Formats: sequence, C-alpha cells, structure tokens
Amino acid sequence: MSHIAYVNGEFLPLEQARVSIEDRGFQFADGVYEVVACYGGHFLALTAHLERLARSCAEIGLTMPLSVDELSSIVRQTYEKNRVDDAMIYMQITRGVAPRVHVPAHEPSPTLVITVRALPEPSDEKILYGATGVTLDDFRWKRCDIKSIALLASVMGKQQAVQAGADEAFWLDADGHVLEGSSTNIMAVIDDTLTTHPSDQRILGGITRDIVLKLAAEDGISVDERPWSLEESGLSECIMTSTTNAALAVVRMDGKPIGDGKPGPMEARLRKLFLDYVEHQETI
Amino acid sequence: MSHIAYVNGEFLPLEQARVSIEDRGFQFADGVYEVVACYGGHFLALTAHLERLARSCAEIGLTMPLSVDELSSIVRQTYEKNRVDDAMIYMQITRGVAPRVHVPAHEPSPTLVITVRALPEPSDEKILYGATGVTLDDFRWKRCDIKSIALLASVMGKQQAVQAGADEAFWLDADGHVLEGSSTNIMAVIDDTLTTHPSDQRILGGITRDIVLKLAAEDGISVDERPWSLEESGLSECIMTSTTNAALAVVRMDGKPIGDGKPGPMEARLRKLFLDYVEHQETI
Repeated sequence: MSHIAYVNGEFLPLEQARVSIEDRGFQFADGVYEVVACYGGHFLALTAHLERLARSCAEIGLTMPLSVDELSSIVRQTYEKNRVDDAMIYMQITRGVAPRVHVPAHEPSPTLVITVRALPEPSDEKILYGATGVTLDDFRWKRCDIKSIALLASVMGKQQAVQAGADEAFWLDADGHVLEGSSTNIMAVIDDTLTTHPSDQRILGGITRDIVLKLAAEDGISVDERPWSLEESGLSECIMTSTTNAALAVVRMDGKPIGDGKPGPMEARLRKLFLDYVEHQETI
Repeated sequence: MSHIAYVNGEFLPLEQARVSIEDRGFQFADGVYEVVACYGGHFLALTAHLERLARSCAEIGLTMPLSVDELSSIVRQTYEKNRVDDAMIYMQITRGVAPRVHVPAHEPSPTLVITVRALPEPSDEKILYGATGVTLDDFRWKRCDIKSIALLASVMGKQQAVQAGADEAFWLDADGHVLEGSSTNIMAVIDDTLTTHPSDQRILGGITRDIVLKLAAEDGISVDERPWSLEESGLSECIMTSTTNAALAVVRMDGKPIGDGKPGPMEARLRKLFLDYVEHQETI
C-alpha cells in the first residue's frame, strides 16, 4: 500500500515527508489536528471535522491557511493518491516555522500536513467481548475542547492503560465523574438512559459522540448529557465512541466488570444504528 | 553567524535540519527539552540541566538515548561549531518516529535535536525600568514539574501577555496564589523575605530559581518557599527568574504597580549575586 503524504502544497512519499526542527508543532505543540474516517470514498462527517478544525485554530489564535472548502479538496486529493479503500485521514495544522520563542515577532506561515492510512477498526474479539479500561484522575489541561496536538498527558494515560493490560484510560474529574477517554468519548447506560458528560471545556466534543447521541434520540432512546460516575446504581453498560472505534462496549473498568461484564443490548443497538448510518451516507 | 543544528548524530545547517512528520514530538508533544546558557564557553549549570532532562524523560517513560556525559559532550560540540560566544543551547528529546497511535507497539528510537543561538538577554530598558506581567487562571496540565514540549497553554498565556502589552503571563492557582510565569519562575519580597511557590507538580523547578534562592540564603537573605499572593500586605517587589532573564524585576501586574512600580533593592542585589556567580564559574 502506498503512503503519500501532503506537506504544505506538495505530495510526497511518507518517508520523505519532513518538517523543520523549528516547526512550532515540534517545539511548542502549537497546533491542532483532526482524524477522519473514509469508507470506500465516502468521508464520514468531513465538513463537521473541518469546521471543528477551524474552531480549534480560532481558539489558539491561528489563522487557518485554507478555507474549509479548499482543505476538503486537498483531503480528497490526498485520499485518492493513496489507493486505500477504507481510510483514516490525519490532518494537522501548526503555526509554522519560526526561531524558538513562545510568541514569534511575526506570524509565520502555518504548516499543513495530511496522511492517509488504512482505517484501523476494532478487532472481532473486541466487538464480541468488549474492551477494557482504567480510570485516572484527570491531569490534563483545562481546554480539552480544543483538539490540540499537546497530547502528552493522553499518551501518558494510554501508557498506564496498556501497562494494566487495558485498552483505554478514562479521565475522572475531582468529583469522580467520568469525563472521556484518552482518545475516545464514553457513555453509560443508567436506568436505560444513555448518559454522557456534557460538551464543555473538560472534554472534546466528539463528532462520533454527537452522531451516536443524535441517532439514539431519533431511535427513541432517552439521552441525558450530565456528569455521571461509575458508582451510580442502575448503571448497566459503558460504551466508548471514536472515529476509529465507532461505538464499542467497555466491559471492565479497573479490573471490575461493568454490568454483567459483557457487551449489552444498548451497545449492539447503537453500533447497528451507527453502521447503518455510515452505509446510507452518500458524500458527507 | 552560523546556525548549525545537531539532529540524531548529524550536524546540519539549521535550514536543512528536519524531522519526520510522524515524529512523536510533532504529532503528540511526546518529548522534553532544556534551555542552557553558555557564557564565553562556560555552560551555566549544564549538569543540572541534563539531570533535569533525564528526570523529565523518566517521568514520561522515555529512555534517554545517551548518558548525561555523552549528551554533555554533544552539547559542547554543537556549541563549538556555532562560533557564538554567549549562547543559548536548546535541546529536545522526543520518543521518535512511529506510525501515529498513542502508544506505539514497539518503542521507537528517540529523536535528539540541539540548536544554538546567541543568548537573548533582557534589554537595558527592562533592566533599568523592569518588566510587566499579567495574571491568568492556570489552565495548564497538572504535571508542570515535567519540562515537556506540550507548551501550547504557555504559548496561549504568553499571547495574552503580548496582547496586553506585557512581557510575561503569570499563572494563578484556584486560591489566587502565584505559581510561575509562562517561561519563568517568580519570587516576591514580602516583609523583606524572598518568597516563592514551593517546587511541586504545579511549577517547573527552575534551575535559575534554585541558584538564586541558594545565593540569596548564602548572602543572609531570608527565604520562604510557600504559596503567596499579590494581595499580601508587605509585598514590595516581584522578581522573575529564567535562564535567559537571570533575575529581572516585574514592576507592574495587570496594569497596577508592584511596590513603587520600580525595580527594588532586592532585585538589584539578586541580579548582582547571580552575575558574580556566573562570572566566577569555571566549567560547570
């Protein structure tokens, strides 16, 4: 499979795709990113992803180098050059190259990088038996609504999950409420209501999360966006969502079973709703 | 002036010094750094900086690619190739290059980058009249003791300072205590006692900070490491410290004067102690 990357106007083999060591993405994590799924040429919610990218740029005071339409066109070109059917498109914008100082005297020209890979999907085993998690006190910054590349805390969280033999680390606020995972959102079924932390500055407003909540509500499922904890009585399932996982059951947390420790009926229902939605999307 | 960079075993002109777009420093802020001053060939506290770098690596689970001694030797070589007398040496270690996933299946080989520039020093104007600051509620992560490249919050803080026409942004904890600046530590003179936030996970244990505190104590100045606020009665001066600023008065905060709004006697005393110390250092 080919790996063609886009870097600032050029298409290059991935192994030749490089940036300056003084790129602010490399020295200051001064940039933002998006990950988009493409199923057989149909991008899932590409416009929503690009609009979120534009919002992330605005929040850090970075002028997006291209319009959403122009970026959309480049994403499609990069996808097409890679000849991979179901793909994960990664795009990153940084503030560009400047001598290292926190705020450069002159705004540099932003760096835009796009890569394409085969879409990683959960294994059959994870779909059948569910994923596992650990909980960690949230030590990330307080602007998790910005999809920034300052991801070291998320890396450290995921390291702890891996060391514990689990798939994902979930962040708890000071009151023990479950916020989100290192690279996923999470929902619980509590007394048959699909319950998830509201979109505020403590979590990233996930696009898969939003689609799943919308599909659930349209299908007659009761939805509640509020802080929740794993200790609540009536909690029967946990489900994590992300671009690459869609909706996936979390069946154990910190070694203890959630509900009966098996993927439950809500997860099956949401997964089907989501996959039907993907299948019936034309160009999005 | 030449700009020769070191990148993974090679010396290169800075404009040719590049890293892969899949370097984890670029995609995940998965790395740590140090900034060291060199005065006419004498590095200030190089060993302390390299030991702190080793500690930062350990805290994020990154195996340092070289020993402190080997790294010290490469720093010296890079300095010598640049033919600049008083220099700022920047070094960065990242977890290396791997296909983008939060925790790579196999630990990649770390990336080591070193650059050298003329040492930026405070202008005569700042030394004579002092610097200015703004305060911001701390929205950074909770592991500021790790000198990581996940610096976006610090960039955003410094942007707010610049927009307000100030030199530095200082972080306040939830109780209004002054923690540190975006790229400096800060001390106050309160009832003649040099007072500064203790070294914990909320601040970076600054090496210049530690040297200044040690020199102050040796010179008979009363030193207290405790949380403090700008509202305390008896507060007469604020002084910020960093590798590039040494000790510099902060005379206004959020537009209001600190003390009489001029650099005070403690700042003059600490600055002199520090510069004498630098001058009498042999190879450190």
